[in-house]
Amino acid sequence: MRAADIIRRKRDGGELTPAEVGAFVAGTKPGGWPEYQLSALLMAIYFRGMTAAETATLTAAMTDSGVRVDLADVPGTKVDKHSTGGVGDKTSLILGPLAAACGVVVPMMSGRGLGHTGGTLDKLESIPGFRVDLSLDEFRAALREVGIGMIGQTADVAPADKVLYALRDVTATVESVPLITASILSKKLAEGISGLVLDVKCGRGAFMKTLLEARELAESLVTVGTANGLRVEAVITAMDAPLGRAVGNALEVAECVAILSGDGKRAADDLSELSVLLAARMVRLAGVESTLEAATVRVRQALTDGSARAVFRRMVAQQGGDPRVADDPWGVLPAAPHRVSVPARRAGYVTAIDAELVGTAAMRLGAGRARAKDAVDPAVGVWVEAPVGTRVATGEGLFTVHYRDAATPAAALPLLEAAVTIGDAAPTKTPLVLEVIG
Amino acid sequence: MRAADIIRRKRDGGELTPAEVGAFVAGTKPGGWPEYQLSALLMAIYFRGMTAAETATLTAAMTDSGVRVDLADVPGTKVDKHSTGGVGDKTSLILGPLAAACGVVVPMMSGRGLGHTGGTLDKLESIPGFRVDLSLDEFRAALREVGIGMIGQTADVAPADKVLYALRDVTATVESVPLITASILSKKLAEGISGLVLDVKCGRGAFMKTLLEARELAESLVTVGTANGLRVEAVITAMDAPLGRAVGNALEVAECVAILSGDGKRAADDLSELSVLLAARMVRLAGVESTLEAATVRVRQALTDGSARAVFRRMVAQQGGDPRVADDPWGVLPAAPHRVSVPARRAGYVTAIDAELVGTAAMRLGAGRARAKDAVDPAVGVWVEAPVGTRVATGEGLFTVHYRDAATPAAALPLLEAAVTIGDAAPTKTPLVLEVIG
Repeated sequence: MRAADIIRRKRDGGELTPAEVGAFVAGTKPGGWPEYQLSALLMAIYFRGMTAAETATLTAAMTDSGVRVDLADVPGTKVDKHSTGGVGDKTSLILGPLAAACGVVVPMMSGRGLGHTGGTLDKLESIPGFRVDLSLDEFRAALREVGIGMIGQTADVAPADKVLYALRDVTATVESVPLITASILSKKLAEGISGLVLDVKCGRGAFMKTLLEARELAESLVTVGTANGLRVEAVITAMDAPLGRAVGNALEVAECVAILSGDGKRAADDLSELSVLLAARMVRLAGVESTLEAATVRVRQALTDGSARAVFRRMVAQQGGDPRVADDPWGVLPAAPHRVSVPARRAGYVTAIDAELVGTAAMRLGAGRARAKDAVDPAVGVWVEAPVGTRVATGEGLFTVHYRDAATPAAALPLLEAAVTIGDAAPTKTPLVLEVIG
Repeated sequence: MRAADIIRRKRDGGELTPAEVGAFVAGTKPGGWPEYQLSALLMAIYFRGMTAAETATLTAAMTDSGVRVDLADVPGTKVDKHSTGGVGDKTSLILGPLAAACGVVVPMMSGRGLGHTGGTLDKLESIPGFRVDLSLDEFRAALREVGIGMIGQTADVAPADKVLYALRDVTATVESVPLITASILSKKLAEGISGLVLDVKCGRGAFMKTLLEARELAESLVTVGTANGLRVEAVITAMDAPLGRAVGNALEVAECVAILSGDGKRAADDLSELSVLLAARMVRLAGVESTLEAATVRVRQALTDGSARAVFRRMVAQQGGDPRVADDPWGVLPAAPHRVSVPARRAGYVTAIDAELVGTAAMRLGAGRARAKDAVDPAVGVWVEAPVGTRVATGEGLFTVHYRDAATPAAALPLLEAAVTIGDAAPTKTPLVLEVIG
C-alpha cells in the first residue's frame, strides 16, 4: 500500500479503506510517511471530504495512536463537554462543577487559547497554584474524590492529531469538516468518557461563520461520535457577541465564581443560561435524570444551593489552587494595575458587539496568544460594561480595559471602538441556542 | 508573504500574483519552503488549476531557476520538437537530422524513459560511444558544425522543475495541465530556442487518454509558450498502437536508420509520415520555407537524397558514437542473444495493438525502467511484425521478442498476447494526426 496510491485515490474522490486510513495515521509516526505526502493527502481530503465511515475510522485510528485513559476504577458515568471555541466562552468552569454536583463524573481535558479565542487551561492557571498537569493517577484520584478534574491533554493523547494539526496549520488545511471532527473526537475519546455534549459555536466570533457550516460540523461530530460508541448531542449556539461579560483569564474566573455564587448583578444572563442548558444535557446523558426538564431543575438547584460552588472550591483545592477563589475571587486572583474605560461616542442602544474584534483586542492586551508559544498575562482583559441591548448615554462606558503595559491600550482600543454598533432602536433579542442535533 | 497564505489563496480558487508564484518557485531552493508546503500547494493547483497568465509566470520562474543556454554565437534559427511521450516514439532521431539537413538549428535536450514510454537519451546511448553529456561548449560546437546536438538536461537546467517533479511523482499531482505545461516549457525555454513544435500524444499508450485532455494540454502549451516569446505549434497525434515497428533502444535506432536510408521495407509508414510532418513544421517555423507545402517538399527531398542520413552520421560522429551505425546499423548496434516469435492464435486482421501493454512488455524485458534509477538493456525489445491492418494466418508472427535473460519472456509474452486484437474485417484506417493547434 503505497502512500502515493492512497493520495491518488482520495484525490480522485474515492473512499479510503480502513487499511488505507490506518496507513495514513500510522504514517504520522516518526519514520512514517514523509510530511509532503501527509500534507498532500490533507489537501486532497480538504477538497474531496470523507464519508462518515471514513471519518469514524480516522477518528478511531487517531485515538489509538496514543493512550486511552482507563477510568474503569472510577465509579459513575463519565460525561464531558466540548466547545469549538469562542470569545468569553468560560462555560466549562461553571457547567463542570454543576454537572459534578449533580452526580456526573467530568474528566475534562482541555486546550489553550489561540488567536482571538480563549482556552480553559489559561483561565484555570490564573488561579494561584492551580495545576493543570496532574498525572493520570492524580487525575483519577480527583475524579473519585471531587467528581471532576480539569487538565491539559498529555503528550501521549492522540499524538497523530498533534502531527496532523501542526501540518494543517501551515498548509491551509484547517477548515475541513472531517479533519476537524477527527481532531476533536480523537482527543475526547481518549478521555474514557461515555457521553459528550458539544457546543458548536456559530457566528462572527466563531470558526464556523454560518449556520450551514455549523450544522455540517455538528452533524458530523454527532454521527462520527456515535459510530465510535459515544452518546453525543450537539447544541449550535450563537457566537456573535462575547459570551458573558469578561474576556481575559482572571476576569473570566471571577465571572464564573459570581455565577456559581448566584450573584446575578455581576454575571451575565447568556452565560448562566448556556451553562445550565449544557450541564442539564450532561446530566441527562449520564442518566442521572431521564428528561431534560428534570435535569434542568436539578442543575438550577445545584446553582442556587451552593453545591456547584462547593464542587468548584474542592476542585481548585484538589488541583493545588487557592480555594478561597470560590469565595473572594479578587482576594486571590491577579489584578491588572491599570484600567481605562471605552466610552460611547453617541447615545442609543448597543445593537451588536463583534466578538472577534473584542477577542483580538484582549489578545493584544496580552490575555491571549498570537502564536502557540506565546505566554499569556492572566490579569489583563476586557470587561463588557454594556452588553447587546443596553441603552447607553454619550460618554457612558462600553468596556473597561484592564491592562498592564502602558503601550497595549493603543493597540486594543480602536478594535473595541470598532466592535460596538449603537443604534436608535433596541435590538430584537436573538436566540442563544440556534439548533440542537443528536 | 507567508507560504500558508499563498496555499490558502490557491486553495480558495484565487489567481496567484507573479510575486506569489515567484515565492513558490524560490521555495524549491535548498532552505526554501518545507516540502509539505510545496506539496500542499501542488495539490491545491491540481484541484484549482492556474490561469494562462499564472502558468506563464510559473514557467518563466522555473526556467530562470537555472541557466538559459546562450546560443547567440550559433548562427541560424533554433527550433526544437517535444513529444509528450509514447511507445516506439523515436521521431526525434529522424526529424532532428531532417530539419537540420534543411538548415534549421536543432538544440535538442531530452530525457530518459520511464514506465512504458521510452526516452531519446536511452535510444542514442545504444549507439556505441555516443555521449549525451556534452559540455555546453561541446554542445555549441556541435550546433555550429553539424546543425544539431542531442544531449541530456544538465543539472543546472530548470532545477525548480526537478524538485517539483520529484514531489509530484510521490504526491499524486502529476496529472495537472498547468504543472505539466510549466515542466515541459521551462526546460525547452532553457535551450535558447525561438520555435517549438509539440507532439501531444493521445490514446491508450499516452499520458493523455482522450482528445479532450490532449487538446487542453496542447492549448495550454501553445498559449503559455507564446506568452514566453516562443513560436509554438502543437500537433495532437494518435498513440493507441506503438509508433513504427520497434520498441527497444537499439531496435529503434535501427528502424530510424532504415527510414533515413529510404528503406521502406524495414520501416513503418506512420513513423516516416509523422517524422516528415513534424520536421516540415520545424522548417516552416524556422522561416526556411514560408508554407507547409514547400517545407514538406524540402523535407522529403532531404530524406530521399541522403542529406538527412548524412547529418545523422555526422551527429553521431560529433558526439563520439560510431558513425557506421548510419550505414550498417547491425554491424554496430548491440543485438540481443535470443529471439522468440509471438504467433497469432487465430487468423484475421490485426485491428488494434495496445501501445501501453507493448511498452510495459518491453520494459519487463529490460528495455525500459520501472524506477528512475534502473538501468536499461540497449539490445532487448519488441519488433512489431504485424502492424494494425495486417492480415495474419493462424501461427503467423505478431511480434518478435528480442531478449537476453531467459526469465524475461515469461513476464512479457502474456502482455504481448493480450495487446493484440484480431478481427474478421480489416479495420478502417484511423488518422495519425488528430488535430493541429497554434
